[in-house]
Amino acid sequence: MNGADSLCDTLLANDIDVCFANPGTSEMHFVAALDRKPRMRCVLGLFEGVVTGAADGYARMADKPAATLLHLGPGLGNGLANLHNAKRARTPMVNVVGDHATYHVQYDAPLTSDVEAVAQPMSHWVGRIRDAASVAAQTSEAIQVARQEPGNVSTLILPADAAWTDLPDDTPAPQPVRQAPQAQVDAQAIRAAAQAIRSGQATTLLLGGAALRGRALAAAGRIAHATGVRLAAETSSRRIERGANRPPVVRLPYPVDLAVAFLKDVRHLVLVGSRSPVAFFAYPGKPSLLAPQECDQIVLAEPEQDLHHALEWLADELGIPADAPQTRPAALTEAVPAEGRLTSAAVNRVAAALLPDNAIVCDESITQGREFGIYSVHSAPHDWLQLTGGAIGIGLPLATGAAVACPDRKVVLLQADGSGMYTVQALWTQARERLDCLTIIYANRTYATLHGEMKNVGVIQPGENAKRMLDLVDPHIDWVQVSQGLGVEAVRVDTVEGFTQAMRAALARKGPFLIEAVI
Amino acid sequence: MNGADSLCDTLLANDIDVCFANPGTSEMHFVAALDRKPRMRCVLGLFEGVVTGAADGYARMADKPAATLLHLGPGLGNGLANLHNAKRARTPMVNVVGDHATYHVQYDAPLTSDVEAVAQPMSHWVGRIRDAASVAAQTSEAIQVARQEPGNVSTLILPADAAWTDLPDDTPAPQPVRQAPQAQVDAQAIRAAAQAIRSGQATTLLLGGAALRGRALAAAGRIAHATGVRLAAETSSRRIERGANRPPVVRLPYPVDLAVAFLKDVRHLVLVGSRSPVAFFAYPGKPSLLAPQECDQIVLAEPEQDLHHALEWLADELGIPADAPQTRPAALTEAVPAEGRLTSAAVNRVAAALLPDNAIVCDESITQGREFGIYSVHSAPHDWLQLTGGAIGIGLPLATGAAVACPDRKVVLLQADGSGMYTVQALWTQARERLDCLTIIYANRTYATLHGEMKNVGVIQPGENAKRMLDLVDPHIDWVQVSQGLGVEAVRVDTVEGFTQAMRAALARKGPFLIEAVI
Repeated sequence: MNGADSLCDTLLANDIDVCFANPGTSEMHFVAALDRKPRMRCVLGLFEGVVTGAADGYARMADKPAATLLHLGPGLGNGLANLHNAKRARTPMVNVVGDHATYHVQYDAPLTSDVEAVAQPMSHWVGRIRDAASVAAQTSEAIQVARQEPGNVSTLILPADAAWTDLPDDTPAPQPVRQAPQAQVDAQAIRAAAQAIRSGQATTLLLGGAALRGRALAAAGRIAHATGVRLAAETSSRRIERGANRPPVVRLPYPVDLAVAFLKDVRHLVLVGSRSPVAFFAYPGKPSLLAPQECDQIVLAEPEQDLHHALEWLADELGIPADAPQTRPAALTEAVPAEGRLTSAAVNRVAAALLPDNAIVCDESITQGREFGIYSVHSAPHDWLQLTGGAIGIGLPLATGAAVACPDRKVVLLQADGSGMYTVQALWTQARERLDCLTIIYANRTYATLHGEMKNVGVIQPGENAKRMLDLVDPHIDWVQVSQGLGVEAVRVDTVEGFTQAMRAALARKGPFLIEAVI
Repeated sequence: MNGADSLCDTLLANDIDVCFANPGTSEMHFVAALDRKPRMRCVLGLFEGVVTGAADGYARMADKPAATLLHLGPGLGNGLANLHNAKRARTPMVNVVGDHATYHVQYDAPLTSDVEAVAQPMSHWVGRIRDAASVAAQTSEAIQVARQEPGNVSTLILPADAAWTDLPDDTPAPQPVRQAPQAQVDAQAIRAAAQAIRSGQATTLLLGGAALRGRALAAAGRIAHATGVRLAAETSSRRIERGANRPPVVRLPYPVDLAVAFLKDVRHLVLVGSRSPVAFFAYPGKPSLLAPQECDQIVLAEPEQDLHHALEWLADELGIPADAPQTRPAALTEAVPAEGRLTSAAVNRVAAALLPDNAIVCDESITQGREFGIYSVHSAPHDWLQLTGGAIGIGLPLATGAAVACPDRKVVLLQADGSGMYTVQALWTQARERLDCLTIIYANRTYATLHGEMKNVGVIQPGENAKRMLDLVDPHIDWVQVSQGLGVEAVRVDTVEGFTQAMRAALARKGPFLIEAVI
């Protein structure tokens, strides 16, 4: 038994039994250790952005961290963008990053870099294992931090010699880590929120994190039904339970002007595990803070606190019984489009209508799928996972990880084409692991969001240089060929009929499939 | 004219007229500025690793930096692995990374991160632009550092408001940056090297950087011919001039045991812009330092010094006239294989034999192409660009950038399949820019280097977990479909005849092409 075994055993003792990996030479002892632990499921990604994004999707659905295995500073660097998203989502994750043997670092071999420095910006916690004997304790600390509610990104640097050094035979078996109990809200916060709601003035509950799920969401739904307060979610959330039998929660719009309009009449904004709304980007002459100055912002609960308890207490404080009715979506009046040229609106409405029961929707549709959230309140019950940190390239990996966590549920990925190309390698992992993922590519062949932003900047007619940076044409990406090349069957459609038929067929089968929806 | 215009103008005033880009919202003012400068060639990469790797390939061939345009911390993160390679190659590069407006950072919007911290590990120099008025001076500093011999990676952070703020009409036009003269070697270093060579004991000149090109290499070739010293290069070099009419330089082997054997009898190791050889990785019981302890290591010139001058001076000191003969490769005795099942050895020998005059060879062949270097001393004259920092995923981008720099030369990329998948998106850029790149995929469908390393670790029969992390099977990657999906014509071959024919056909045409060589 060596340090690498100790690390694996500590993960397994804490029920971390999936490792998304792209190892290199310095991790070979760890790979050899994994090879001795058949309980650990190892999932290879062909690029590290796939690895970290999949670990994010896995943890969002499994409600426990996965491990990742990455190769020195550059391998970690490749995974940073999706670590950024995971950090913003407060997804629990334990990254294991191999490094040179401790005595080898001084020679500045070609792959040497400052691994801590690379990890720091996108991790909540970074640790470097000192030696083989320290592995169990330091790994336990990484796990404890990762699991601390609402979740944290831990990055553990494993020098090769700490991995390969043998431990004495009498080394004790690793123990499960004890977590501190979650922080609770206090009565004052409850009273302040209740008072705002009772005032009769326009009040919005802005829900974040665990407030968008299960009994917490149900409590929010009862409060909304009984008092008329509006339920909203941050623009991007880690996981929302949604569908016809659940309280509808409106997403705060992404464009600054729409977000300001959305909040303009709010007098009391109650933050439930969410943050005071800020603009995603700054624009000349537009505000950074989105809520009106005269709006009273009340923190019902910080993201770290027990949101479920906070919302049930609030309902209780407002005298709403546990069996009171919850808000439900208004009836859907518009018919689902059935034919014609395919548009993003049609994709959104057909996808929302056909969504199977208990699906997991992963969403990196950026501009083209924004309307999906309007229609999906009427869909069959599902979980909706969003791009939380704005770093594109999360969609395909997120769906991959969610499908690993929930093999019995259908994963439907709404994927913008520009963003999808960032981590397209994830399709191969879906094929290898036979994951039940349906990917819908919104093939508008442009970075549409940037065209909008160019207009914001005052460029109405982009010139040659701008067009070549904003448009994904000349050549078109043939998603069907790319997908098939990576082992995932695919079809291209450009009519509503074609899309509807393709989606029905894809839902009727198991395993990965891709629809290139030309819009 | 605003800060973004000032940045573009400063780049152009310094003859930096190619910008590899993947912009986002915070860079829209910079994109609008680029749109007003038709002299700037903007090349879109569908992923930032493509952008930074292409800027590396461009600068290695153009002998001047390109600019890159990247989007905040995560966009920079995606480019880090190839920045690491560029930093190790000492490639000049000016990265422009957009960030939030200065006043917006405090609100910690979802895409906020510590951009300096992300940049630092893989940059020689990092600067944050203070305001629009400071753009020209700070950009000039970034350029000056980047160009300082042998080259540096400069990263310049551009807050959105510094980009969009207008400058007064009387702002002076940017001026070309003056570079400090390159440092020269001193007579003592020359005398020490000359004395070692004259000793008659086994001496190796270990050439790095500019010593592998042009008149510097020619001087080394004269010294080798006249004195019998051996010419060697570091395992990986930025750019080597090679071929039948040039002095053959042996690469220091990558495997530790072979490298130790290569150096075992050396009594004087003369470092010419190179570093004292160290093992790429540490292994239990194997040395980190590769040269024998009793070997006398003499620094003829640091990488920062004028290597051409140093080698000509050394030749002069040794009394070798400028028109003395240079070493030349021994005659090639083996016939090039003509038929049979394709192997990596056959690919290497056929590719070396068919290499057209003045080709640019980009090499990320890892294990499978190591023998290419043995045969390519007999090839037509060419430049050979290697993976310098060990961060895989450089090949396709490097070839892309080299082809942008040298539109009249054929680029031949030797690409391992596992590494190629890291930045496969570069194929699309090759298609869009009609680049004359031939990609040869060594499709062995495994991370072969890791199989070797597993054996080093003592695992002779990898189990299920190890095999699933080391082998690229189940499913195979269909490179032909992937390539065609990204707009690059492709063909698959598995015989020597098929490969020979495909390579001949590819060399007879212009534009991007890919051969999947199943070995």
